[in-house]
Amino acid sequence: MSRTKTPPAAIGTPDDTEAQFYEALQQGDIDKLMAVWSDDDEIVCVHPGGARLVGPGAIRAAFEGMFSHGSIQAQPEKVRRMQGLSCAVHSVLERVQVMTKAGPQAAWVIATNVYLRTGEGWRLVAHHASPGTQSEARDVAEPPSVLH
Amino acid sequence: MSRTKTPPAAIGTPDDTEAQFYEALQQGDIDKLMAVWSDDDEIVCVHPGGARLVGPGAIRAAFEGMFSHGSIQAQPEKVRRMQGLSCAVHSVLERVQVMTKAGPQAAWVIATNVYLRTGEGWRLVAHHASPGTQSEARDVAEPPSVLH
Repeated sequence: MSRTKTPPAAIGTPDDTEAQFYEALQQGDIDKLMAVWSDDDEIVCVHPGGARLVGPGAIRAAFEGMFSHGSIQAQPEKVRRMQGLSCAVHSVLERVQVMTKAGPQAAWVIATNVYLRTGEGWRLVAHHASPGTQSEARDVAEPPSVLH
Repeated sequence: MSRTKTPPAAIGTPDDTEAQFYEALQQGDIDKLMAVWSDDDEIVCVHPGGARLVGPGAIRAAFEGMFSHGSIQAQPEKVRRMQGLSCAVHSVLERVQVMTKAGPQAAWVIATNVYLRTGEGWRLVAHHASPGTQSEARDVAEPPSVLH
């Protein structure tokens, strides 16, 4: 066995894989992060405001660049799920802690995460993230009251 | 049979479904557009700079609002594809013609389109679109030379 890639600790369900993705972001752990992704040359990643990145090499390089400035404190919230036999589509609102002149503040990111079932378990094949709106902030912070 | 939803004309492959999606945008045809989507209550749509829309009702309302200003001249280019047994993930650079004071100009949008295979064929379950960058414009307009 010549594989040196770090195997995921637990990859039983798409939720397990997603949990590992966000843990890797929070820990700034590039090997753990890349182990979540499929090896497919067509995997796709779009960061908020960024260009389309295709393939493990481009995706790793971009995350390494981000991690060189520190880890990414992104918490998944309000996950909506669709699941096929070999595919899971998750829409996630990410609460990202960013440092501003006024101290740490929460920003919102909308992410679509797509997982395919492979011989090695559920692996991430697409992560598309874009800036959220005030609507997302309200959605998370102020659930609609049933009284009105 | 009480179904009144317009059936897709041809829905044999994910590419057929995607072609119908962009035709519907270009024609401003809301029924054709909604026939492309799955009926699942968890389908998700994110327009560039917009909030997350979940479910057929919210998605229809947003497209109806857009179509009230005219059709959407979006051409899919540089499609990258990953396919599982029951799932297809397409990453598309959309060339969108927008009217400016200087006349019609091309804008670029990065879209992730996810299709699941259903009893009625391949149906769209997620469309996540966000503004492209100069990199996308270059990617489409100026393929890298093999000489340098």
